[in-house]
Amino acid sequence: MNYQEAAIYLQEGENNDKFFTHPRNPKALAAYLFAHNHLFYMMELLTGLLLLMLSLCEAPAVPSLRLDVYVHATLELLALVMVAFELCMKLRWLGFHTFIRHKRTMVKTCVLLVQFVEAIVVLIRQTSHMRVTRALRPIFLVDCRYCGAVRRNLRQIFQSLPPFIDILLLLLFFMVIFAILGFCLFSTNTSDPYFNTMENSLVSLFVLLTTANFPDVMMPAYSKNRWSCVFFIVYLSIELYFIMNLLLAVVFDTFNDVEKMKFKSLLLHKRSAIDHAFQLLVSRQRPMGVSLKQFDGLMRFYRPRMSARDRFLTYKALNTSGAPMLSLQDFYKFYEVTGLKWKARRSGEHWFDDLPHTAFLIFKGIHLLVKSKAFQYTMYVVVAINGVWILVETYQLNSGFSWSKLVPWSYIVFLTIYGVEVLLKISGLGPVAYFSSGWNLFDFSVTVFAFLGLIALAFDKEPFYFIVILRPLQLLRLFKIKQRYRNVLDTMFELFPRMASLGLTLIIFYYSFAIVGMEFFADVVYPNCCNTSTVADSYRLINNTQGNKTVLEEGYYYLNNFNNILSSFVTLFELTVVNNWYITMEGVTSMTSHWSRLYFMTFYIVTMVVMTIIVAFILDAFVFRMNYSRKNREPLENPEDENGIVFEVEVSRDDVLAALELYKQMCPGSSSLSSLQGVLQTMDKSGHSSLVYLGRRSRTKSDLSMKMYEEEIQEWYAEYSREALPEPDQSLERDPDSPMPDLSPFPEPQLNSQTGPHSIN
Amino acid sequence: MNYQEAAIYLQEGENNDKFFTHPRNPKALAAYLFAHNHLFYMMELLTGLLLLMLSLCEAPAVPSLRLDVYVHATLELLALVMVAFELCMKLRWLGFHTFIRHKRTMVKTCVLLVQFVEAIVVLIRQTSHMRVTRALRPIFLVDCRYCGAVRRNLRQIFQSLPPFIDILLLLLFFMVIFAILGFCLFSTNTSDPYFNTMENSLVSLFVLLTTANFPDVMMPAYSKNRWSCVFFIVYLSIELYFIMNLLLAVVFDTFNDVEKMKFKSLLLHKRSAIDHAFQLLVSRQRPMGVSLKQFDGLMRFYRPRMSARDRFLTYKALNTSGAPMLSLQDFYKFYEVTGLKWKARRSGEHWFDDLPHTAFLIFKGIHLLVKSKAFQYTMYVVVAINGVWILVETYQLNSGFSWSKLVPWSYIVFLTIYGVEVLLKISGLGPVAYFSSGWNLFDFSVTVFAFLGLIALAFDKEPFYFIVILRPLQLLRLFKIKQRYRNVLDTMFELFPRMASLGLTLIIFYYSFAIVGMEFFADVVYPNCCNTSTVADSYRLINNTQGNKTVLEEGYYYLNNFNNILSSFVTLFELTVVNNWYITMEGVTSMTSHWSRLYFMTFYIVTMVVMTIIVAFILDAFVFRMNYSRKNREPLENPEDENGIVFEVEVSRDDVLAALELYKQMCPGSSSLSSLQGVLQTMDKSGHSSLVYLGRRSRTKSDLSMKMYEEEIQEWYAEYSREALPEPDQSLERDPDSPMPDLSPFPEPQLNSQTGPHSIN
Repeated sequence: MNYQEAAIYLQEGENNDKFFTHPRNPKALAAYLFAHNHLFYMMELLTGLLLLMLSLCEAPAVPSLRLDVYVHATLELLALVMVAFELCMKLRWLGFHTFIRHKRTMVKTCVLLVQFVEAIVVLIRQTSHMRVTRALRPIFLVDCRYCGAVRRNLRQIFQSLPPFIDILLLLLFFMVIFAILGFCLFSTNTSDPYFNTMENSLVSLFVLLTTANFPDVMMPAYSKNRWSCVFFIVYLSIELYFIMNLLLAVVFDTFNDVEKMKFKSLLLHKRSAIDHAFQLLVSRQRPMGVSLKQFDGLMRFYRPRMSARDRFLTYKALNTSGAPMLSLQDFYKFYEVTGLKWKARRSGEHWFDDLPHTAFLIFKGIHLLVKSKAFQYTMYVVVAINGVWILVETYQLNSGFSWSKLVPWSYIVFLTIYGVEVLLKISGLGPVAYFSSGWNLFDFSVTVFAFLGLIALAFDKEPFYFIVILRPLQLLRLFKIKQRYRNVLDTMFELFPRMASLGLTLIIFYYSFAIVGMEFFADVVYPNCCNTSTVADSYRLINNTQGNKTVLEEGYYYLNNFNNILSSFVTLFELTVVNNWYITMEGVTSMTSHWSRLYFMTFYIVTMVVMTIIVAFILDAFVFRMNYSRKNREPLENPEDENGIVFEVEVSRDDVLAALELYKQMCPGSSSLSSLQGVLQTMDKSGHSSLVYLGRRSRTKSDLSMKMYEEEIQEWYAEYSREALPEPDQSLERDPDSPMPDLSPFPEPQLNSQTGPHSIN
Repeated sequence: MNYQEAAIYLQEGENNDKFFTHPRNPKALAAYLFAHNHLFYMMELLTGLLLLMLSLCEAPAVPSLRLDVYVHATLELLALVMVAFELCMKLRWLGFHTFIRHKRTMVKTCVLLVQFVEAIVVLIRQTSHMRVTRALRPIFLVDCRYCGAVRRNLRQIFQSLPPFIDILLLLLFFMVIFAILGFCLFSTNTSDPYFNTMENSLVSLFVLLTTANFPDVMMPAYSKNRWSCVFFIVYLSIELYFIMNLLLAVVFDTFNDVEKMKFKSLLLHKRSAIDHAFQLLVSRQRPMGVSLKQFDGLMRFYRPRMSARDRFLTYKALNTSGAPMLSLQDFYKFYEVTGLKWKARRSGEHWFDDLPHTAFLIFKGIHLLVKSKAFQYTMYVVVAINGVWILVETYQLNSGFSWSKLVPWSYIVFLTIYGVEVLLKISGLGPVAYFSSGWNLFDFSVTVFAFLGLIALAFDKEPFYFIVILRPLQLLRLFKIKQRYRNVLDTMFELFPRMASLGLTLIIFYYSFAIVGMEFFADVVYPNCCNTSTVADSYRLINNTQGNKTVLEEGYYYLNNFNNILSSFVTLFELTVVNNWYITMEGVTSMTSHWSRLYFMTFYIVTMVVMTIIVAFILDAFVFRMNYSRKNREPLENPEDENGIVFEVEVSRDDVLAALELYKQMCPGSSSLSSLQGVLQTMDKSGHSSLVYLGRRSRTKSDLSMKMYEEEIQEWYAEYSREALPEPDQSLERDPDSPMPDLSPFPEPQLNSQTGPHSIN
C-alpha cells in the first residue's frame, strides 16, 4: 500500500502538476519532498523578490536606497546562486530528460546563465553596463509555486493573443489607410504640424486612437475647412468605437472559452489524480474500495496537521452511502471535502445561553435590539446624517485650516454612536458571530481606526491625520441596504484574489518595461528640456517676475521620467491611463531618437492587451455570477450563509468508538487521538448518542462552475473515461498504462510516526 | 370571412402593434387604413425631419442658411399643423379612450401644443425668444413608423437605466469621498489649483474620472510629495478600472436579458397575431384549416403587390404536410415564409450554357480560371504589392505636391489589372452571380470609382481627387483571406442596420443637447476670451511678431462653440470623445456661470449611458454570433450561401393547373394570372412535369435567436398556450376572450378587385 505516493498524486492533482513530472525513484522522491514544502517555496519567493528589489538600488537607483556596485552585485550573485540551487533540486527530482522537456524551466536556466555572466562582469568592472536583460528577472518570481495564479494569467493572456492580434492588424490597417488619406488631404495646410509628413501622420493617428490628442489634432484642419471634421469623426467611429469594442468582444469571447476549457482540464486532471490514488489505495484482496484505515493512512501524508477527528469526519463525509468502504464514486468527491472546517452543531443558539438569568435577559434584550430592523435603519439614518454633515463641514472649511482644529464636536458625537453600536453588536451577537461577517469586521476596523486617529490627534501627532480623513468610509455601510450593492460588493470580495493576481501580472509587465525604460531613457528629460519639440511648454520651469511678485511657471512633465524604478512605475501608470501620454512620448523622443516612439507604442499595445483582459475578466466574472444567481434563484438574503459550502455529517457513538479502536491499533499512544476522545466527551456531556458536525468552507468559482456546467461535466466525464479507461470494468485494477508500474520507489509508509520525515503539506 | 381583418392582425403582429389599438368599427378602420400606408409614413417622417432641420435656419443659424423669422416660423407652423393632422387621424382610428391611454401619443400632443403656442408667439413678436423646448422636437421624428428601431433603442436604454443608476451612485459616492480626502490632503498646497476648494476638488475628480486631466491634476501634489501619487492611483483603480467596468458588466447583463425578453415578447406577439388571423380565416364548416382560396384572399390584403405565383408558392411552402389545408401548426410559420423571394432552380449551372459552342468554351475557360485558387491568390498578391507601393510612394512625397502630378504609372497599371479582373469575373460568373456577392460589389464599385477619379483628374478636375485617395480601400480585400475577418466583416454588415439606428439615437440626444447648448451658450466663446480661466491659452489668437516673421499663435478652442447647430454637433462629438473636454467646459464656464458645468456633466453621463449601451450591443452581437457558430458548427466556408435562409418547394403540373383554375374562378380576367401561366410555360419548355422553386431571404438576428433558444422557445410556447388558450383542444374555435367579437366592423372583402381601395402594405 502506497499511502505516500497516493498522497503525492492527490497533491499533484490539486496543484495541477503534470503527471510526467511525478518522481520515479527514491532519490527523485527525496528531492521531490525537499522541493515541495513551504520552506522551499518561501525561499523561492524571497529570492525572486530580492532579485526584483535589487533594481531599487542599482545604477539609476532611488536616491535614498543607492548601494555601492560591489554590494548589489554581490547580493545579486547570492540570489542567483540560490536560484541555481533550486534548479539543481528540480533537476534531481525530474531527471535530466524531463528537465529538458520542461520549457519554463529551460528558459529559466538560460536567463539564469545570462544573469550570472552579467553579474560577474559587473563585479569585475565595478560599474553597471547596459543591462536590458534585467527586464527578464520577473521570470524568477513567476516561476515560484506561490505565483501560480500569475502564471495562469500569463498563459491566459498568451492564449487570447491570436484573435487579439488579428483584430489589431485590422486596426493598424485602417490606421495606415487613414494616415495616407490624412497626409494627402491635410499636408497642403502648412500650419498643420500633425500631418506634414507621412510619419507624423501615422503617429498622430496612433495617438488619436487613444484620443489623447483629440480636438487638437483636428483643429488646424477644422479651422481651414469645417468639413474636415468628417475625416476625424469617421476615423474615430471606425477605430475607437467599432474596432476597439470588437477587440474587447473577441477577447471576451476567447476568455470565456479559455476559462471553461481551463476548468474542464483542471477537473479532469483532478479526476485522473483521484483515479491514480484510488488504484494505489485499494488492496488486491478488497478491490472494491478504501477503508477508513487506508484513508487515514493517506490523509496522514496528504494533510499531516489534520487532527484524527477531522480525518474521521472527512471520511464520513465522503462515505455518503454508509457502506463499509469508499467506492471510486465516493472518492471522486475528495477535493470537495478536504478543505472543510469541522464544527459541532451547537445545541444552543446564543453565546450567552449559559450565563446567569439576569445577564441572560439583558443580553437577550440586546440581541433582539441589535437584530431588529428598526435598529439597523436607525444606524443607516445616522450614517447618512453623518455623511451629509461631513460634506457640509468640508465645504465650509477654508483652505488654510490646521489639522488640530479639525476635530469638531460632531466628529466625537458620531464616533461615540458608532462605538456604542459596535459594543452592542459584539455583546448581542457574541464575538464569534460578530467577527465572522465581513461587513461587521469592516465597521469594527473603521471605528477602531477613527478612535486611534482621535487619540493621536489629541496628542498632536499630525502624521496620523489621514486616519481621521478615512471616516467618510463609514458611509460605505449605506450600500448594504440594497440587494444589488450587496451582490456587487460580495462579488468584489470573491474576485479580490484573482484581481490581485491580475494586478501582479500587470506589475510584472511594468517591471520589464521600467527596466528597459531606465536603461534607455534615464536622466533624459529635465526641467526646460525638449525645446525643439511641440510639447516644450509642459517641461518648462521658469521663475516669472511680474511686477514685484515672483510666479513659478511650472510644466511639471519633467517629473514623468525614468530616472529610477519608482518614477518609472508612476510614469508607466500615466502611460496606462493614456491621457496626455504623447507629451511624455514626444518629450523623450525629442531628447533621444524617434525610434523611442516604438517603446511607447509597444507599451501602449501591451497594456491594451492586459487591460482588455482585465475588463474581460470583470465582465465575465459578473455576468457569470449574475447568470448563476438567475439560474439557481438562490436566496441571497442571508449574507452570512451565502458564501459557504456546508456538509453535514452525523456520527454515532458506536462509529466513534470503532474509529478510536482502529486508531489505537494503528498508532498506540499517539496524542492525536485526543480530538476523537473529545467527541466522545461532548456526546457524554450532552447526553445524545449521536452528534451532527458541520463542515464549512467558502465557496469558490469552481463550485459555481460545477453547478453552471452540470450537464456538460457529465459529458466530459463520459468522454474522459472512454479515453483514459478503455475498459471501465477493469478500472479498479492497476491500469497497465499507468506511469507508475510495480517497481515503485516508495518505502512502506511509517505508520507509527505521526508524519513522515518530510511533510508534504 | 374576414380577409382584411386577418391581414391587419398579421400586420400588427409584424409591426409589434398592440392589439388594443386594433380598429373596432368601420370609421376607425377607414382611419386605420389611411394612417397605415407608406405615403402617410413618409409624410410623418418628412414632417419630423423638417422640424429638426428648422434649427439650421433659426436664430443662431448656420450663416449660409439663415432665414427670416417669419419664414421659418411659418414653416414651423405648417409642419406643426401637419403633425396635428396626423394626430387627428390617429385619434379617429384609436378612439378617444385608447388615445388617452397611449402614453407616447399623449406626450406628443402636449409637446405639440407647447410648440404651437411658441411658434405663434415667435411669429407675433417677430423675434426668437429663449426656446429650450425645441429640444423636445425629436419626439416628432421618433414617433414615426419608420423610426421604430430608434424607439426600441430608447426603450432599451430606459430599461437598462435602473441598474446603471445604481452603479453610477456607487461611482459618485466614491467620488465624493475622494473629493473630501483630496481637499483635506492637498488644499494646504497653495500652488495646487485643482483642490483649493471643495467644489474644485469635486470637479477635478469628475474630470479625472474621464482621465481628461490626468497627469496634470496629479502634478502639483506629486512635485511636493512623491507619495501623493498613491491617492490618484487608488482613485483611478477603483473608479476607472473597477467601477466603470462594473457599469459595463451590469449594462451588458441587463442588455442580454432585455434582448432575450424582447425576442420572446415579439415571438409571442406574432404567434398571438397568427392565432387571431387563423381564427378569422377558418370557416365554420371546415374548422380544421385554411385552404388555398382563403390564403390567397388573405395575401391579397396583406401583400397586395405579390404575384399570384408567389402567393401560390408561399402557400406551398407553408403546407409542408401535403394535406389539402393548412393547419394552425403550418400557419405558425407564416412570418418565416412571407418575405421569401422565389426563383426557379435553374437546370443549367452557368449563364453561358445556351451560347454557341466556341463562346461556351471560352467562357467556360474564363469561369474555371476565375474560380481557381491560383487566380484568387494572384489577385491577393497584386493587392498586397499595390498596398506596399502606395505606402512607399506616399512616404516619398514632399508635402508641397500637386494633385495632377499625383497619378504615377503604377496607379494606371494596377487599375488596369483590377479592371481586367472585374471584367473576367463578370464574364466568367455571369453578372447576376457576380453582383449577388457583397464583396464583388465592393470590388466593382471601388474599381469604377477609381476609373472615374482617373478620368476626372485627366480633365484636371481637382475636387475629385478624393476618389483617387480612396484607392487604398482596395486593400480591404486582403481581409477576405482569413476566416475570422470574413466572420467579423459579415457580422459587421449584419449589424449595420442596428448600428445605424443606435447612431440615430445618439444623434437625437445630440440634437436635444445642441439646442439647449445653443440657447444658453451661443456666441459665448470667441478668440482671446476666457482670460480669467486656467485654460486661457487654448482660446488665444495672437499675431506674434518675432523678428521679421509673423507667427500666428492659435489656440483654436474658440472653434468648439455652440454658435450654430453644426458647430454644436462637432463640439458635442468632441465632448463624447472626452479628451480635453474640460477645456471646452472651463472656457464656457468662465464666460457664464459655474452652473454651466451641470450641462457638460449631464451630457457626459448621458453619452456614457448611450456609449455603454453601444459597447454592450457590439459585445452582445459578436459573442452571440460566435456562440452561434460554435454551437451549430455551420460550414461558414461558402460566403455566398451563408447569409440566406432557403426554402425549397416542388410544384407539379397538376397543382399549378388546379391553382390556375381556382384563381380564374375567383377573379376572371385578372392580369395577375400571367405569372402562374409563366410557370406552366417553363414546365412545357423544359419538359419536366414538376419544377423546384427556391425561396431565399437574408438571415436576420431573429433567425439566429430562433436556433439558439430552440428549447426555451418551446417552453415559452407551452406557457403562452396555457395562458392564452386555457383549453388547447378548442383553440381552433373562436376564442371567447378575443378582443374581436362577432360584431366585426369589416365589410365583405371585395375579391373581384385586385386590392382594396387602401392598400395596407
